Amino acid sequence: MPSSLDLHPDRLFPAEPTVRAMARELYEEIRALPIVSAHGHTDARWFAFDEPFSNAVELLLAPDHYVFRMLYSQGVSLEALGIGSKAGPSMVEPRDAWREFARHYWLFRGTPSQLWLEHVFVEVFGIRVKLEPQTADLYFDTINAALASPKFRPRALYEKFNIEVLATTESPIDRLESHVAIRASGWTGRVITTYRPDIVIDPEHEEFKSALRTFGDLTGEDVFTWAGYLRGHRIRRAEFAALGATATDHGHPTCATADLGEVEAAALFARILGSEVAATDAELFRAQMLTEMAKMSLDDGLVMQIHPGVVRNHNRALFQSHGRDKGADIPQSTDYVHALKPLLDRCGNDRRLAVILFTLDESAYSRELAPLAGHYPVLKLGPAWWFHDSPEGMRRFREQTSETAGFYNTVGFNDDTRAFLSIPARHDVARRVDCAYLARLVTEHRLDEGSARDLAVDLAYRLPKKAYRFD
Amino acid sequence: MPSSLDLHPDRLFPAEPTVRAMARELYEEIRALPIVSAHGHTDARWFAFDEPFSNAVELLLAPDHYVFRMLYSQGVSLEALGIGSKAGPSMVEPRDAWREFARHYWLFRGTPSQLWLEHVFVEVFGIRVKLEPQTADLYFDTINAALASPKFRPRALYEKFNIEVLATTESPIDRLESHVAIRASGWTGRVITTYRPDIVIDPEHEEFKSALRTFGDLTGEDVFTWAGYLRGHRIRRAEFAALGATATDHGHPTCATADLGEVEAAALFARILGSEVAATDAELFRAQMLTEMAKMSLDDGLVMQIHPGVVRNHNRALFQSHGRDKGADIPQSTDYVHALKPLLDRCGNDRRLAVILFTLDESAYSRELAPLAGHYPVLKLGPAWWFHDSPEGMRRFREQTSETAGFYNTVGFNDDTRAFLSIPARHDVARRVDCAYLARLVTEHRLDEGSARDLAVDLAYRLPKKAYRFD
Amino acid sequence: MPSSLDLHPDRLFPAEPTVRAMARELYEEIRALPIVSAHGHTDARWFAFDEPFSNAVELLLAPDHYVFRMLYSQGVSLEALGIGSKAGPSMVEPRDAWREFARHYWLFRGTPSQLWLEHVFVEVFGIRVKLEPQTADLYFDTINAALASPKFRPRALYEKFNIEVLATTESPIDRLESHVAIRASGWTGRVITTYRPDIVIDPEHEEFKSALRTFGDLTGEDVFTWAGYLRGHRIRRAEFAALGATATDHGHPTCATADLGEVEAAALFARILGSEVAATDAELFRAQMLTEMAKMSLDDGLVMQIHPGVVRNHNRALFQSHGRDKGADIPQSTDYVHALKPLLDRCGNDRRLAVILFTLDESAYSRELAPLAGHYPVLKLGPAWWFHDSPEGMRRFREQTSETAGFYNTVGFNDDTRAFLSIPARHDVARRVDCAYLARLVTEHRLDEGSARDLAVDLAYRLPKKAYRFD
Repeated sequence: MPSSLDLHPDRLFPAEPTVRAMARELYEEIRALPIVSAHGHTDARWFAFDEPFSNAVELLLAPDHYVFRMLYSQGVSLEALGIGSKAGPSMVEPRDAWREFARHYWLFRGTPSQLWLEHVFVEVFGIRVKLEPQTADLYFDTINAALASPKFRPRALYEKFNIEVLATTESPIDRLESHVAIRASGWTGRVITTYRPDIVIDPEHEEFKSALRTFGDLTGEDVFTWAGYLRGHRIRRAEFAALGATATDHGHPTCATADLGEVEAAALFARILGSEVAATDAELFRAQMLTEMAKMSLDDGLVMQIHPGVVRNHNRALFQSHGRDKGADIPQSTDYVHALKPLLDRCGNDRRLAVILFTLDESAYSRELAPLAGHYPVLKLGPAWWFHDSPEGMRRFREQTSETAGFYNTVGFNDDTRAFLSIPARHDVARRVDCAYLARLVTEHRLDEGSARDLAVDLAYRLPKKAYRFD
Repeated sequence: MPSSLDLHPDRLFPAEPTVRAMARELYEEIRALPIVSAHGHTDARWFAFDEPFSNAVELLLAPDHYVFRMLYSQGVSLEALGIGSKAGPSMVEPRDAWREFARHYWLFRGTPSQLWLEHVFVEVFGIRVKLEPQTADLYFDTINAALASPKFRPRALYEKFNIEVLATTESPIDRLESHVAIRASGWTGRVITTYRPDIVIDPEHEEFKSALRTFGDLTGEDVFTWAGYLRGHRIRRAEFAALGATATDHGHPTCATADLGEVEAAALFARILGSEVAATDAELFRAQMLTEMAKMSLDDGLVMQIHPGVVRNHNRALFQSHGRDKGADIPQSTDYVHALKPLLDRCGNDRRLAVILFTLDESAYSRELAPLAGHYPVLKLGPAWWFHDSPEGMRRFREQTSETAGFYNTVGFNDDTRAFLSIPARHDVARRVDCAYLARLVTEHRLDEGSARDLAVDLAYRLPKKAYRFD
Repeated sequence: MPSSLDLHPDRLFPAEPTVRAMARELYEEIRALPIVSAHGHTDARWFAFDEPFSNAVELLLAPDHYVFRMLYSQGVSLEALGIGSKAGPSMVEPRDAWREFARHYWLFRGTPSQLWLEHVFVEVFGIRVKLEPQTADLYFDTINAALASPKFRPRALYEKFNIEVLATTESPIDRLESHVAIRASGWTGRVITTYRPDIVIDPEHEEFKSALRTFGDLTGEDVFTWAGYLRGHRIRRAEFAALGATATDHGHPTCATADLGEVEAAALFARILGSEVAATDAELFRAQMLTEMAKMSLDDGLVMQIHPGVVRNHNRALFQSHGRDKGADIPQSTDYVHALKPLLDRCGNDRRLAVILFTLDESAYSRELAPLAGHYPVLKLGPAWWFHDSPEGMRRFREQTSETAGFYNTVGFNDDTRAFLSIPARHDVARRVDCAYLARLVTEHRLDEGSARDLAVDLAYRLPKKAYRFD
């Protein structure tokens, strides 16, 4: 007899009855607000071509590095989960991969992955028993059957999920054909792109040189000159903006910025095109490019997002066998106060610019990020990110930033996910945790009830629209 | 119809009824204790000459960088808030500045500034409606009318606030005329000075050289020699002590200390008097001077306060246009364990010395500060400081230091403010948050009730008197 | 009339009645589980020879650096507490030392030391009045009388405490005579050793050279050659394993690892045997040896524990007068993500290896440690350690690691103590705090009750047995 699976209506609210009642009241007013998904990694092709998703494993398991990293850490091979390597696709049957997942599902006890997955199981697929070895096949068959029906096509789900806008992320060497196709299709969903130029900015990216060549082809510029390279960015930013982009995104190992003179910048660019790039030059180039991107934003109004502080592909053997994005990205201690100064000296007071800062180093919340955002007109704080996109992580974010930066120097929630089906789950967790925090402030008489109601709507809906310039 | 404004008697206490009842009980015993304001930045002239405060803007808005930094971060100009620049005073009428403040007052939702301001509005000025655009004039007129009355003169407020001792902060080039005048006046208020020598210790301060010349004039020493410079400090420390000072204060970018030999120290001093000072020499000189100050404290008994870890004047354009203290000071990651070793090697076990450590890097609380204070006889921990002088910040301070350092290696609360009217509000917040923490310990049976009652009085009253040697 | 002393049955549980009820229920199922003490510093001689403990001071006060460091920080001399120096033993009578302790016992309000001590007073010695000056003699006499009785011999206490396995820690120059004697005695208690080779690995240890000579004598190897030195380790590891060891332990100032080639490693070894060792070489040698130890673990299966990040003997004067372990070890900021990469590149995916990571830098929990343990098959997280082995510290550990690493990449509790009598107290605190955390998850509907029950047993009992390979 499998255990029943329910989503408790009071989940994520504190147990104390007064606080819970207030949290419930605040949540009730915002639970049905449209979803503003301002930063994420879903595949624009889904919405362009609206084809059915293939099966449970390819939809829910193989692309979710939150999930398979945990299984891998406990000795489950990626192969067994249906995840291919450079040597080729996994030979494991999807059903067997799903069974392997079910066998180890208890590992997710107390994790956000469990919260998200169970929300998807119940709310999207209507499953009411727990995922266990004996229910693995039931799950697999139920999910696959659903995916074959028209109601589970990407566009239908987009509408069912009450999404108002959904931003994907593309690189400067993407032809944006899917976004063009979405526009051409006449579909009314608002799926927009985001300019994410890391691959042509990071000299240490393994595809940097070949990406530059494509970048040149696409823009018609000689991007192997400094001036042509910058023009290439301006051209592509304009093309992205024409397809709805309101933002750029930058995933650098540190938050370093630089503001070199024209001559030094051109010389640096020449050096990073050479055959051997010094690590210091690579870092300086990424730093300089953040400032170049900020300068371009002054002109074209694209909001800058900086997602720094991750050592990518930390597991050497796994990177060699399986490539990027296999759950082996590990955060590092991240400085902001010194790192951002060159960019801020250049344009920190110019409100044409908007920079949204993220961190994986929570010690920076109260020490650097809240003080910076609570002063500089151009800075705002992105929500708790990645490993911290969790109930405890979101709570720490509010507790450690609100008093210094205020709520209004934050930008609402980002789901930041490629797991499309989990988008409502993730926004729901954020809404609940924010309401719980506001409820605590109200019941401790640190915030009046009217302000809390207003803030609940701001955090869930108004702030992301404003911060990402969606209006 | 404006909303009503109240201070809830249970504000800042946890909602859970048992904990709240215990917090209330503890608080009831300490709420009326005299205020010991051991570290702050009020203006001694107020108490020397007892003149009325001018108006709401000049009293509550223009000097409060907690307040105007938040407004600035959201695009309000300093000019619009009545704050002058190097080009001259603001041309905006105080009433208009106040209206601008009222228009943006909602930005302070959930911040300590709101807590402090509303305490002042209700308790000092008797206002019972919220600050909103439509009540801006009512506020402005009510406050200004009050300020014109004798009951709102500085000395009357000092007495009304039940302040037992109030420390201001002056530099070695201050003639202390206000403190002399206070003593000469026969007024019984205890307003004392604190020796804050940064301006003649930091070679990177923009007024360092001119301050040194004044320092020489005031002391009659040739302060451009190492021996004369040190004698100058001893002379002024004695003069400060004669006017009640029991402490020195040091605001350095890091907590670095050094213990150079006589010859090296003199050579370093010669170098920092040169026309170009290397950043490493500037840092080393500040470091050496902390140890010199400690050595002088061994003789004269002044308690050392170290407030390290801030990058001052981070916003270059704003510093150029408006100068210091404009809300653009940003904390940085701060080491203590290595930084303090030279000073501690010199005199870390000598109980004639007392050093009170502060931090803006909360990650140091449990990692370095509590372990250091829980071992060294000379070290104590100052309260949650500046950006962390807030309900969540104070709670983190207690949670992250008490178990390792104990309560008795902390020194009670500092209001650290130039906003005189907010002093009772700030102490009240600290007392409430401490009582809430103690109440949690009692209700979780980690502390007996008698000890908690005793501790509540210690934290609010006895510890600051003892730590700052006021007895 | 002395105050009464009780251990409240609900201590350490949150006050909120629903959460408390759930915590109590979970705790009830695990409170009586056997103690698995996988990492600690009790003296194997106690169990080998089963002699009575001498007196209250030598048992409870003089060896407990948590206790005497706090007293020292408040001006109590070590001499007055019965603690000898290099000049000789303390001249203070044990009774007087105990009285001095009683006089200052209030300093421990709100600390884990108080929790542990009072558990010992009540549960082990049956004392029902508080420790105060007027009860000092009662305590001293009661404890000493008890210690003289057979029920308070080490083996009897081991059995009374329901310990299933107890690991001590010995160095490679220990002949393990006590462990041999335990085995030879036929006693059924499972007291095992742990291989802790710091003294022959750290070139900066003051006894490094002499320890190496003993290491050579004991192993019969020429440990002044690189090959002989490594063989020496293999020999001793095997001897430790034969006496039950399942783990090694490494207490380094940082977590640095290195993976040098054979030739470079041998050259480095030659350099660190020289008369002057560069600090960089000392650090590199310690780093290299962590990887060497990992490689040996691949063969012999010993679990590696890394306890990094402490500046040992920070108080220079105290180290000179009193030597090591006098409460003057202070943590420092600790990097893991870069530090561990060489070792992980070498064998991070090889499940023959198991590495348990500890930290005193809590900022690493969510930033580096949970992400690392949530990915690498060889890594697990040790519990909140040393200064963080406290109710708040354990709560932070769970809140900051569980969501990313999951509960199953942690290893249960370590008491890590030389205070044998406090072992049940320490495990009890951990069990209560974990149950309180699980109860919060259940009442916030983030974890179902069945999983919580299962997890409570895992954290208290199953995980340490599995992680330390006791099965």
